[in-house]
Amino acid sequence: MLKFVSLLLALSFCQGLQHNNIDDYVEAEPVFEASKYGSLWPLPQKVQISEVSFKLTSSSFRIVDAKASSAGPSCSLLQSAYRRYYEYMFGSAKKQWWSKNNRRSDPSDLSELQVWITSPDSECDGYPSVTSDESYELTVNQPVAVLKAPKVWGALHGLETFSQLVFEDEYGAKSINAAIINDFPRFQHRGILLDSSRHFLPIKVILANLETMAMNKFNVFHWHIVDDQSFPYLSRTFPQLSEQGAYHPYTHVYTPADVKMVIEFARLRGIRVIPEFDTPGHTQSWGKGQKDLLTPCYSGSKPSGSFGPVNPILNTTYDFMAQFFTEISTVFPDGYVHLGGDEVDFTCWKSNPDIQKFMEQQHFGDDYRKLESFYIQKLLDIVTSTKKGYLIWQEVFDNGVKLKADTLIHVWKGNQEQYQNEMASVTASGYQTLLSTPWYLNRISYGQDWQGFYKADPQDFKGTDEQKKLVIGGEACLWGEYVDATNLTPRLWPRASAVAERLWSAKDVTDIGDAFNRLSLHRCRMVERGIPAEPLFSSYCPHEYKGV
Amino acid sequence: MLKFVSLLLALSFCQGLQHNNIDDYVEAEPVFEASKYGSLWPLPQKVQISEVSFKLTSSSFRIVDAKASSAGPSCSLLQSAYRRYYEYMFGSAKKQWWSKNNRRSDPSDLSELQVWITSPDSECDGYPSVTSDESYELTVNQPVAVLKAPKVWGALHGLETFSQLVFEDEYGAKSINAAIINDFPRFQHRGILLDSSRHFLPIKVILANLETMAMNKFNVFHWHIVDDQSFPYLSRTFPQLSEQGAYHPYTHVYTPADVKMVIEFARLRGIRVIPEFDTPGHTQSWGKGQKDLLTPCYSGSKPSGSFGPVNPILNTTYDFMAQFFTEISTVFPDGYVHLGGDEVDFTCWKSNPDIQKFMEQQHFGDDYRKLESFYIQKLLDIVTSTKKGYLIWQEVFDNGVKLKADTLIHVWKGNQEQYQNEMASVTASGYQTLLSTPWYLNRISYGQDWQGFYKADPQDFKGTDEQKKLVIGGEACLWGEYVDATNLTPRLWPRASAVAERLWSAKDVTDIGDAFNRLSLHRCRMVERGIPAEPLFSSYCPHEYKGV
Repeated sequence: MLKFVSLLLALSFCQGLQHNNIDDYVEAEPVFEASKYGSLWPLPQKVQISEVSFKLTSSSFRIVDAKASSAGPSCSLLQSAYRRYYEYMFGSAKKQWWSKNNRRSDPSDLSELQVWITSPDSECDGYPSVTSDESYELTVNQPVAVLKAPKVWGALHGLETFSQLVFEDEYGAKSINAAIINDFPRFQHRGILLDSSRHFLPIKVILANLETMAMNKFNVFHWHIVDDQSFPYLSRTFPQLSEQGAYHPYTHVYTPADVKMVIEFARLRGIRVIPEFDTPGHTQSWGKGQKDLLTPCYSGSKPSGSFGPVNPILNTTYDFMAQFFTEISTVFPDGYVHLGGDEVDFTCWKSNPDIQKFMEQQHFGDDYRKLESFYIQKLLDIVTSTKKGYLIWQEVFDNGVKLKADTLIHVWKGNQEQYQNEMASVTASGYQTLLSTPWYLNRISYGQDWQGFYKADPQDFKGTDEQKKLVIGGEACLWGEYVDATNLTPRLWPRASAVAERLWSAKDVTDIGDAFNRLSLHRCRMVERGIPAEPLFSSYCPHEYKGV
Repeated sequence: MLKFVSLLLALSFCQGLQHNNIDDYVEAEPVFEASKYGSLWPLPQKVQISEVSFKLTSSSFRIVDAKASSAGPSCSLLQSAYRRYYEYMFGSAKKQWWSKNNRRSDPSDLSELQVWITSPDSECDGYPSVTSDESYELTVNQPVAVLKAPKVWGALHGLETFSQLVFEDEYGAKSINAAIINDFPRFQHRGILLDSSRHFLPIKVILANLETMAMNKFNVFHWHIVDDQSFPYLSRTFPQLSEQGAYHPYTHVYTPADVKMVIEFARLRGIRVIPEFDTPGHTQSWGKGQKDLLTPCYSGSKPSGSFGPVNPILNTTYDFMAQFFTEISTVFPDGYVHLGGDEVDFTCWKSNPDIQKFMEQQHFGDDYRKLESFYIQKLLDIVTSTKKGYLIWQEVFDNGVKLKADTLIHVWKGNQEQYQNEMASVTASGYQTLLSTPWYLNRISYGQDWQGFYKADPQDFKGTDEQKKLVIGGEACLWGEYVDATNLTPRLWPRASAVAERLWSAKDVTDIGDAFNRLSLHRCRMVERGIPAEPLFSSYCPHEYKGV
């Protein structure tokens, strides 16, 4: 049995000193100490770290396929991951290429990491899914380290963990302690929502954040791609949607090639891309390029010139949706699509005489939720026919829409008591659910708000074990009203990292002090990898952000 | 008399639509419309804009010294400003160099801007000061525009204003409307406080923010350079202060050359650099490199090993301060230095038997504020002997320390009622004052908090006209606990721009809607100039931030 030791890490924090010029609204100040888990984030399920350490040299260290691995040199997903992680571990040390020939091989060196995919089907060329096996085992010992994983998805996580174990000793030598790690995620669905409608997000920003998601073992990019404000998705079937509905039809759109690039970049990092096309509300931008799609609002007996939600009483609406979602089902390979369904405002429907007549015909009375359900049920049937599963915001469940048994209900409303009741209610009805309410990262406040995100647990509600099992995870949401390329990345990281650990690590990993210590190092690592992750508190990183 | 017209500007905002997934805690949503003042920010004192417009060509447009100007080609401050503003106006158009030869000269073109320094002493090689004349007059008409200013400082502001008048017409041609502008600042002291102690700020970050300050007509960089957490200032006299007290003695320090570069970069933009060396509190980092400077704290009858504020009872303390501030007085050319004096914690002094004895000898009783005043008065005498004026935080005034008549009292504490009472009290005592309380930009909150900054007015307190005249301005403060190179710039801009307009423009410039419209364009201009200024609300810029 190996003994735990504190790793020495090249980072210092100020002691808890007086607070300058700040009223006393700040919580007790944390003091940095090295965690016995070093800079591991999110914390793996089982970690043993020994006092014995080995050195790694940039000239000779290699990441290789194990002989028995089911993934070989043709698995470009792994081959490019090897290069990526080599770069992360030795990027700054590459200048020492000249030392190669002078260097004697040292018996205490760690010479290679062998990556061994154990299942006959490595899934190298596939897409990750909600049921993907993401587990891995990592053994760091002499003369080689071995990373075993049933599928490539676990191997990707294991490579990240391996890179997190590597540190610089006091002479700048890359080192790693002997270790045994057994790891798997607590929840299958660990997502980040980005919103490219309130502000257009250049592809470069999206890719940088996918890269950072992988460093945090997130596995779902929930792409809230269109909304009222703009429609940047360039549809092959309905190009006029972005032609008219984007902020600009050339500079502020995602072309099919862009979307493909995002999906492949994500796949190579074990990340699913789930697009959201929210209807019937949040669709103002759709109406610009698609005549008669939205409901004309009335002022008295005349159309007011403004439009409301999708018009649910026209057959053309459903023809359009069928064509549109058929395209979406081929463009996005993931098994799920997010259909929104939140915040439908009934004012416009109520004003429209044709809608009123339809309500009468259908015997809906004054209950416009029934009209909403009428629309959503037809939409769900359409999407089902494209062979996709769906996620929907909680209102659709709350309004009693008939749902397929495998529908995922996305909880986002209310305070803690309310969302916990909602989770209880959704799971009591037998539906799977994921949580976002406590993780609206667009809502900023002064101080260390990551601690609040960290303390929320999606299984904390009154319910049976069976109900708890229906919680498949959660998502951190960064709605776009106040973020764009100028400030998105530092606002998201490392605040989302707190959510990452809650969704990956064991339920009892709740020590806020230990989390602070590991997260401080993890954020400096993100900075060193070129990501402008903001600081947790007064501190410094050995290598400060350079991309100013 | 010229007529006002709306300028057409290349920016759109979404209309006030529904709000997705946000509880109703957001204020009414502003809707973008073009202001009749276009993108001018801060709004000049007197603006007349005509409907007549001229075109500017990158190949032939020139900024030149007027014949009668007292500043000629040898005034490198102006010459480099001409290049800077040419670049800002035509940067993206330079690719069209090939059009030069094909182009016919058009009689409706604006061919040049003449810059005319009218005072015999242009102050080109001097430093800006609290009494600098920053006024200018700008006349844009055919065939030339004329910018008249008594001193170079006004000319710099006029160049910025001129560049803000230039816009792209619908064919991408650079254009400007005929205009007459008479301008001067409402307050002399318009500052930004940055804190390089809680986090080290690379020089590049400081320079980028000085550049942005100039775009907003700020004229004071209050450099809170050291504090408890670290001492990055490399002192020639006491190099051990940063050797021991910086986060790192080589990578996290400001060398004499760095400081010189910051001061010159600021001077070229009409910005004063006022360093703050805060004592006797906030000095933990000083103690590491300067033995016996801090008070040893006691636990019972024995030293506890920790240290408190500067030790006020030793002669060596004052010898040190005399040498240190003599160096500061030569390194920083500005007439003022900020001496801090805030938040002195008496716990440690109380614990120390030598201090207790001293208190008895001096007949201070139990009133440790008398000991604080004893220290501060000796310090003020030292600094006075270096021929510098000083700013101090309000506590020094509150505690009844005897102050020179020209001391500037910096108000930072309390709620609105409290700070207004403080302003009344300070000015009733005949002291000049500047305000920061409502402008602590480190305190972030969700939504458009710039509106709150914009509404605060430093002259809103009960007092006579004489008292109001003692208000010399204010400063936006961005304390460093939660900001470093990763997030400082988008967090500061355009939020600080709100303060910039409050301190520059006339008191009655308070229309929040018009401000939103101009500020939205101003922030896109900052983005286009390479500054990651964050968005005010859902919107887009024609040229989004590229420096991701």
